[in-house]
Amino acid sequence: MHRRDITFGATLGLGATLIGGGKPMAQPADLLARLPVGAITDVPGVKVGHFTDSRRPTGCTAILVEDGAVAGADVRGAAPGTRETDLLDPSNLVERVHAVMLSGGSAFGLDAATGAMRWLEEKGIGFPAGPARVPIVPAAILFDLGLGDHRIRPDADAGYAASAAAGDQPPEEGSVGAGAGATVGKLFGLARGMKGGIGTAAVKVGRVTVGAIVAVNAVGDVVDPGSGAVLAGARDAPDGRQRINAAATILRGELPPAMQAGMATTIGVVATDAQLTKPQARRLAQVAHDGLARTINPVHTMSDGDTLFALATGKSGLPGHMTVLSVMAAEAVAAAVLRAVLKARTVSGPGVPPLPTAAELG
Amino acid sequence: MHRRDITFGATLGLGATLIGGGKPMAQPADLLARLPVGAITDVPGVKVGHFTDSRRPTGCTAILVEDGAVAGADVRGAAPGTRETDLLDPSNLVERVHAVMLSGGSAFGLDAATGAMRWLEEKGIGFPAGPARVPIVPAAILFDLGLGDHRIRPDADAGYAASAAAGDQPPEEGSVGAGAGATVGKLFGLARGMKGGIGTAAVKVGRVTVGAIVAVNAVGDVVDPGSGAVLAGARDAPDGRQRINAAATILRGELPPAMQAGMATTIGVVATDAQLTKPQARRLAQVAHDGLARTINPVHTMSDGDTLFALATGKSGLPGHMTVLSVMAAEAVAAAVLRAVLKARTVSGPGVPPLPTAAELG
Repeated sequence: MHRRDITFGATLGLGATLIGGGKPMAQPADLLARLPVGAITDVPGVKVGHFTDSRRPTGCTAILVEDGAVAGADVRGAAPGTRETDLLDPSNLVERVHAVMLSGGSAFGLDAATGAMRWLEEKGIGFPAGPARVPIVPAAILFDLGLGDHRIRPDADAGYAASAAAGDQPPEEGSVGAGAGATVGKLFGLARGMKGGIGTAAVKVGRVTVGAIVAVNAVGDVVDPGSGAVLAGARDAPDGRQRINAAATILRGELPPAMQAGMATTIGVVATDAQLTKPQARRLAQVAHDGLARTINPVHTMSDGDTLFALATGKSGLPGHMTVLSVMAAEAVAAAVLRAVLKARTVSGPGVPPLPTAAELG
Repeated sequence: MHRRDITFGATLGLGATLIGGGKPMAQPADLLARLPVGAITDVPGVKVGHFTDSRRPTGCTAILVEDGAVAGADVRGAAPGTRETDLLDPSNLVERVHAVMLSGGSAFGLDAATGAMRWLEEKGIGFPAGPARVPIVPAAILFDLGLGDHRIRPDADAGYAASAAAGDQPPEEGSVGAGAGATVGKLFGLARGMKGGIGTAAVKVGRVTVGAIVAVNAVGDVVDPGSGAVLAGARDAPDGRQRINAAATILRGELPPAMQAGMATTIGVVATDAQLTKPQARRLAQVAHDGLARTINPVHTMSDGDTLFALATGKSGLPGHMTVLSVMAAEAVAAAVLRAVLKARTVSGPGVPPLPTAAELG
């Protein structure tokens, strides 16, 4: 799918321009102050725990809904790695899940869900099935094997540790958990990218809350939708400080190098305390992707397995007004994406490219 | 699905804020000058023809690919009206279509595709099936029955007329064809909305072109992604000139009134002269929706049947570089959406609310 077509972009300077492209850079501190205050843990019934590997930048993040939550998912990227998403089809049996696992480690990281299942089973939490209770833990992974020793990746113990660490306080953001090895702006190679991370945000309207947590590891740039400016993205050179605006660069006719499928992926969860049906939960996961589209460009590419889950705990006791919830979900996701890169830290280690953060480049 | 939940948004002023919300309005003339120059007819092999009903604001738009084009579709809105989209599933037989019909008139407007089929059959164009040739004409409709006499809607003759009018010159934009009765900014009722329309744009990178044509009839506002400012959207009052920013208003806690499903819908086509497989065409239709997400807020709502088709004529003789094409498709769609409302004209007539245009309000 990714063969390089030499003729295609060979005509440098004959391309198009990007709407709003070439804007001055956003000011990270100012933007952070403008974003919604809150975290996915503001949604009653939702706990979050990270496991961050100390050996190389990778990890996983458990989003627990121990009383169960009606769930849906939408896989929009072309290179996904997922588990238990077929179960979330509205025509299938099980309505409620007990956790969602977000993990680094590419497809290997799907094992982290096993650890969450073990932790939940020990607590007696799960779908009643004869003598057993089967914890339902959908999961999605992102690709961070390019940072350090690729043989190190989240496993079942990592997932167990993340679950055991889960609490209802706002989780740490930036270069932790599933976002520890996340990077962005990779269209012209990882070395010219910047640090990604994991972010969370919540918006409340009336008595209903929608929160999001997103591990941002996109091929594309992260863009402030209020200005069109690139916050974190592809740079002019591996040691450069200039963000080139990847989409604008492509439209000008500069061909991105060949990229293997699965080198990236943004994954996340939106959660609400509204009461939703299973089809409504799926719909919420679908519209939540509009929050990715507004803050990541390009997004949903051939090398991204972009996947979002939606969880409805129902603990507000109020039915969902889907139009309002959709606006809230897209906004919470957008804010979580921006916070993910604004809170990112430089990470280092053997084989880890020293990518700058949005805060560093200002 | 759309019952009004009184408690939900009752707490005015306790809501969240929108990232980049409350921006000064965009300057329509400036923006128009910044958008890509071009039309979907820049893609070799693509012709476009409008039929605009003179009796009330409705009509249809035929996008012809008489030599056939590999096609895909993605239906992202919750209230779609479509025809021949199952055929476009990559696992199904037929690869190439001969036209796409975009039509007003709600589900009644699907008949317009019949007219395109008749026109194509007369030309001997179609999928060879024994003694016959069956023209393949996927179609999608938008809801414009609220403007004037709802018994008037595009029929097979309208579709035939649009097909017969098709040519390879840049089509007229604004309040014509499928966009004749299009409106936007309807979250607080049609009377507080603004005029939508149909727009087209194209971007060229190297020797490959991607064009888009989009009939913009969204529930949500049309937003300039370069500034976050609302171009055309919900206003403060039926006779008001102030755009309130519907998403920001909802996040502040103002509840939109109940809206019936299917009162809106944005539909369109992206076309390229790259050579694509059927799965790639579907992927292009999927990522093209990111162009809608960046320019319409909210989008893909319960009342929108947002549907995009992708057509690959292959006439460049070059294979598709999906990452580049994805950026181009999202950008062409975004530009077409903006042009649709920037080119819109005021329409009037019995039972037609006098909605202002973006150009009028400046």
